[in-house]
Amino acid sequence: MTDTHPTALNLAREEPLPERTAKFFAICEEKLGLVPNVLQAYAHDTAKLDAFSAMYNQLMLGESGLTKLEREMVAVTVSALNRCFYCLVAHGAAVRELSGKPELGEALVMNWRVAELTDKQRAMLTFVEKMTLESHRVEEPDRQALRDAGWTDQDIWDIAAVAGFFNMSNRMSSAVAMRPNPEYHAAGR
Amino acid sequence: MTDTHPTALNLAREEPLPERTAKFFAICEEKLGLVPNVLQAYAHDTAKLDAFSAMYNQLMLGESGLTKLEREMVAVTVSALNRCFYCLVAHGAAVRELSGKPELGEALVMNWRVAELTDKQRAMLTFVEKMTLESHRVEEPDRQALRDAGWTDQDIWDIAAVAGFFNMSNRMSSAVAMRPNPEYHAAGR
Amino acid sequence: MTDTHPTALNLAREEPLPERTAKFFAICEEKLGLVPNVLQAYAHDTAKLDAFSAMYNQLMLGESGLTKLEREMVAVTVSALNRCFYCLVAHGAAVRELSGKPELGEALVMNWRVAELTDKQRAMLTFVEKMTLESHRVEEPDRQALRDAGWTDQDIWDIAAVAGFFNMSNRMSSAVAMRPNPEYHAAGR
Amino acid sequence: MTDTHPTALNLAREEPLPERTAKFFAICEEKLGLVPNVLQAYAHDTAKLDAFSAMYNQLMLGESGLTKLEREMVAVTVSALNRCFYCLVAHGAAVRELSGKPELGEALVMNWRVAELTDKQRAMLTFVEKMTLESHRVEEPDRQALRDAGWTDQDIWDIAAVAGFFNMSNRMSSAVAMRPNPEYHAAGR
Amino acid sequence: MTDTHPTALNLAREEPLPERTAKFFAICEEKLGLVPNVLQAYAHDTAKLDAFSAMYNQLMLGESGLTKLEREMVAVTVSALNRCFYCLVAHGAAVRELSGKPELGEALVMNWRVAELTDKQRAMLTFVEKMTLESHRVEEPDRQALRDAGWTDQDIWDIAAVAGFFNMSNRMSSAVAMRPNPEYHAAGR
Amino acid sequence: MTDTHPTALNLAREEPLPERTAKFFAICEEKLGLVPNVLQAYAHDTAKLDAFSAMYNQLMLGESGLTKLEREMVAVTVSALNRCFYCLVAHGAAVRELSGKPELGEALVMNWRVAELTDKQRAMLTFVEKMTLESHRVEEPDRQALRDAGWTDQDIWDIAAVAGFFNMSNRMSSAVAMRPNPEYHAAGR
Repeated sequence: MTDTHPTALNLAREEPLPERTAKFFAICEEKLGLVPNVLQAYAHDTAKLDAFSAMYNQLMLGESGLTKLEREMVAVTVSALNRCFYCLVAHGAAVRELSGKPELGEALVMNWRVAELTDKQRAMLTFVEKMTLESHRVEEPDRQALRDAGWTDQDIWDIAAVAGFFNMSNRMSSAVAMRPNPEYHAAGR
Repeated sequence: MTDTHPTALNLAREEPLPERTAKFFAICEEKLGLVPNVLQAYAHDTAKLDAFSAMYNQLMLGESGLTKLEREMVAVTVSALNRCFYCLVAHGAAVRELSGKPELGEALVMNWRVAELTDKQRAMLTFVEKMTLESHRVEEPDRQALRDAGWTDQDIWDIAAVAGFFNMSNRMSSAVAMRPNPEYHAAGR
Repeated sequence: MTDTHPTALNLAREEPLPERTAKFFAICEEKLGLVPNVLQAYAHDTAKLDAFSAMYNQLMLGESGLTKLEREMVAVTVSALNRCFYCLVAHGAAVRELSGKPELGEALVMNWRVAELTDKQRAMLTFVEKMTLESHRVEEPDRQALRDAGWTDQDIWDIAAVAGFFNMSNRMSSAVAMRPNPEYHAAGR
Repeated sequence: MTDTHPTALNLAREEPLPERTAKFFAICEEKLGLVPNVLQAYAHDTAKLDAFSAMYNQLMLGESGLTKLEREMVAVTVSALNRCFYCLVAHGAAVRELSGKPELGEALVMNWRVAELTDKQRAMLTFVEKMTLESHRVEEPDRQALRDAGWTDQDIWDIAAVAGFFNMSNRMSSAVAMRPNPEYHAAGR
Repeated sequence: MTDTHPTALNLAREEPLPERTAKFFAICEEKLGLVPNVLQAYAHDTAKLDAFSAMYNQLMLGESGLTKLEREMVAVTVSALNRCFYCLVAHGAAVRELSGKPELGEALVMNWRVAELTDKQRAMLTFVEKMTLESHRVEEPDRQALRDAGWTDQDIWDIAAVAGFFNMSNRMSSAVAMRPNPEYHAAGR
Repeated sequence: MTDTHPTALNLAREEPLPERTAKFFAICEEKLGLVPNVLQAYAHDTAKLDAFSAMYNQLMLGESGLTKLEREMVAVTVSALNRCFYCLVAHGAAVRELSGKPELGEALVMNWRVAELTDKQRAMLTFVEKMTLESHRVEEPDRQALRDAGWTDQDIWDIAAVAGFFNMSNRMSSAVAMRPNPEYHAAGR
């Protein structure tokens, strides 16, 4: 795997990258010290990269009743249930860094039930697990349990949207054998 | 369920809708005779509606080595595995209409293995099923089977992207109890 | 698939058909406009056809505390869990016709939990799902839940008998690749 | 549980039993030393008892390319996968008695894969397991594997019919908590 | 399979057996009328045989708040969930002998839910099933349910230890195709 | 959780610890910088601690055709399938340390299929996964696949023994909510 082949598919990167993409990648380098391979993987089609990034940024960085850490907790919990290597490495690092608690990241990667969580967070992850493993069985009492734990209807939408997004992203990553940037492994330890 | 509550969540639609959204909905009415409830559901946050629509339109209507019908076949197969009512109703109708074969739509909703398919399509849906049910077990031989059936690496990306998208969308719909527009039931019979 | 090979097995129909069978098929033609392929499939052995029909007619058309529609609802719910194409096509049509509600047939085919049901019917289908997916875990509280919802012990027997019958019939149909008569697809839309 | 309540349901036996049923039960007593509880359970409705018995006798005692022992082997294998106590006790005894090999009955109850089987029988039980656990995935290669092992198309029908029947019967027994006659436990040891 | 090859692996027994092992086997012969094949299987490495036996004897024969019968009930329930032929034959016999109730042994082999159990035993087997099938979901309420049923914390440790041990032993036996001594089949009938 | 309560059970440590145990713990402190909590958990019954340690040391540290790293790789793979927090933390650290490759430890924790493995190791973990998830389906071809990959029959025994051991240990840890020593998290990064 190299920068130009961040997956098992033989897809050439758009060359040259459009200016907006080159700029975006430069910002990543500056802020994160790397361009996440998921973005490199999408760089064979920058229109799709834009749409993916727009959705990602809204969900994970935009306004929400969930903190950024909580959104990353959802990401890792879903990714653990789907056993997605790329997302667990990248978002496990994010949980460790945002929380300052390496054990929290580890617990969510390994078995979310053993993590130290507030009751509100536990309700969130219970819903997220059901959505991931048997979404067709989600019914009104499942939504009500979230409300009872203190989440608003807007928050429920956001929880569902983040959990849904990683159910897409996990499958995409596994389908094309996306490899995480090695820098993530040591981050936030 | 009404236009303003197309899901089980109590989320108010942005009022008034931004002009671009109002226009988009008007085009839907004109072309489809309805505004799909998934769009109505997103109308409480039109920025997210835009991102969702952008991604959807690229995947389902943009350039691809998959025909539009094949992309809808992926959508229905994934949705059947996830037992998502909204997506099966809406995209089952699309398969019936695009193929002119009601039985094809029915077979994909009920059990894709009994559908009349080309070998190339059968390889596609075999991959899609594995991605949906156990994505962590996808390995190189699974991708190679697609190549052997005549798909390019770009096509594999597109198959994975559509299958991934509906794994998101199915879960989102089930999580918020999205209801399909009733018009779909009779379409393409 | 033709009349003489309604399955993937090469089994010759008894020729000539015994008079009672010929008469039975003529009645089917007259009343339904077709001879259901399941009967054609059994026509290689009319003694077995008789036994199958006797049991079917008792269960689905005889006296019972369940309406005919409710028995068809059980049939479709079981068949959806087993993903049996033949039975979903034939009995999905029956639900649409008996109820006059195409959406009800669709919902039961796709995900029974989203169907509009009375509490009594919901209890029935909850039991039926457990019987189908993990019958060894049925215990007294499961039967009591049916009684609490208003079903008698005789009704419980009938629910179990219909659900059991379609667990047989689904597997038989899938095992021999039985194909539904094409007329069913458009019925009751 | 008593003779009049062989299940957890409170269903009164038809009294007096019709003459044909009384005679049938007397024959059972004479030949088997007992009236199987499954028949007692059906005695609240002798018309249904007749249909059930007719189908059972055709399948298990009628002409077939499968020996009676092989049909009982299918019965036990299916019942083990469904963990049906009634059927395992009653038909486990039948395998022990018909084969003269207690270990064969035990192995089929516990894990059919460890049983000593001919290749032809192993093919049969492989098919039966797939029909029981995931019938919607049965495809032509599964049927062809049976033909390759020496079974005719008529035999395949019979294998499917017996396996289907016990998938019904197992669920019926578990749903109503049918208890086996205690005499079976010691039989054929 | 012979005494020297009690499994599918070609592993030579230590020859001559160390004196302590020879003595141990002689005691088995005297007390049980046989040397259990699991011990013969370990005889290619008597140091490992010693460690295995030490752990087994502590768990199954040592001091505990569980009776010996209850420990065998755990053994059979776990082995039934794992469908381990060796352990079901050997420990099914033990349950029949220790309880004097052949039906109890049969019920635990076939479907523990139908066995006649005290509430305390039912709580024990409920915990044991969860540990066996989805140990990562065991949480404090599961342990509390055991306490509520009358088990002490030391008993919970012992229940878990026995259930854990047979989850090892079942897998070991199946992995190497260990065959039970034929004498077990008839024991305790 | 403290040293005296390393699990959710209220079990008092033997006081004073027998000399041999005190010495053993002192050696752990010296060599590892900690006494693993699994040993602390067993310290309420030092006879059982001895048996557990004896078996563990034989398997993981004794002579074998598997390297110590390979045995730890089996431990982590099994523990990941069972989602055991304690064992993943402790043995994930061991894989990182013994291999000098943090990514290898991460991959085995997250999804062993993506790890960089030799063909021989891949065969080993394929067998280990089947043993863990569906041991009753292990058959001769599974063992032969190990031989074909270069493992001897003695090695197969050892692979099975280590995989079996962690199927015990994982369940024991989860059943009593064993907590890993915090020092493991940072080790070998």
